[in-house]
Amino acid sequence: MAAGEAPKQLTAPAAPSPNGVPFLPGYADWKVVSTTDRGDNHTLRIITGNDLAMSAIEKRQLPSWPEGAAFAKITFQSVDDGHGHIVPGKFVQVEFMEKHRVQYAGTGGWGYARFKGAELKPYGDGPHFDNECLGCHEPVRKNDYVYTLPLPRSEGSR
Amino acid sequence: MAAGEAPKQLTAPAAPSPNGVPFLPGYADWKVVSTTDRGDNHTLRIITGNDLAMSAIEKRQLPSWPEGAAFAKITFQSVDDGHGHIVPGKFVQVEFMEKHRVQYAGTGGWGYARFKGAELKPYGDGPHFDNECLGCHEPVRKNDYVYTLPLPRSEGSR
Repeated sequence: MAAGEAPKQLTAPAAPSPNGVPFLPGYADWKVVSTTDRGDNHTLRIITGNDLAMSAIEKRQLPSWPEGAAFAKITFQSVDDGHGHIVPGKFVQVEFMEKHRVQYAGTGGWGYARFKGAELKPYGDGPHFDNECLGCHEPVRKNDYVYTLPLPRSEGSR
Repeated sequence: MAAGEAPKQLTAPAAPSPNGVPFLPGYADWKVVSTTDRGDNHTLRIITGNDLAMSAIEKRQLPSWPEGAAFAKITFQSVDDGHGHIVPGKFVQVEFMEKHRVQYAGTGGWGYARFKGAELKPYGDGPHFDNECLGCHEPVRKNDYVYTLPLPRSEGSR
């Protein structure tokens, strides 16, 4: 949002994800795991992690993420500011991965959900839409299906 | 860092900033304000804010940032992962802006500091190097010298 603009206060989507994976409010207050600039679809993304995920990073437990670890990938349209910077534009969607080995055994131990646009419309037709998610994450099975690596740890960061 | 790689634990630079502006440990645990991909020097940057800065965003007090508000701009080399994503590479530097109207009156009410590379080498020759910082931030004086706007507020983010 532009500085001073009123933030929208909607705290939950209109409907749940078709596979029952919960929307996780507060994800924007989680600590940052990384950021990526995706050129093919012109989006900037910020990946945040809940306390369990950040603790696993701290303790170097990767790539096996602990039960309850969760990530949010917050996606914005990428905008060229005209001064050499690609900056976040309009909010596109937020996606979640939540680790529960038994509950989400059918999708590699991770629950996947995506909520699109200003209305946070749940993505997916039917409870098994997330096979699509799994299909895309299968190539990184050895990383426990997680694409994003934690940021290079800057000295002084902790 | 790569997953599982040992994080470095150095928590302070070898020397202070020549202008006395403090290094602010823990900046990587602050909440994220935004992210930018700077093409001209091939860097990805994550901007985090301390609690005072994030509270000002919440309360829509911008563009006048409160006393004690601080930002960290954490900069990484940008790396093309070969699959259409620009991802963070090697840590380049961390820069700080800290708001203290009286203490930093000579530089627009903000203290500036930069710590470069793995050794967090303080940037600047002499106490007035930060006139260079001010010079670059002068064009955004109307935004209280801050370039980064908070992220477009995604519904459901709070």
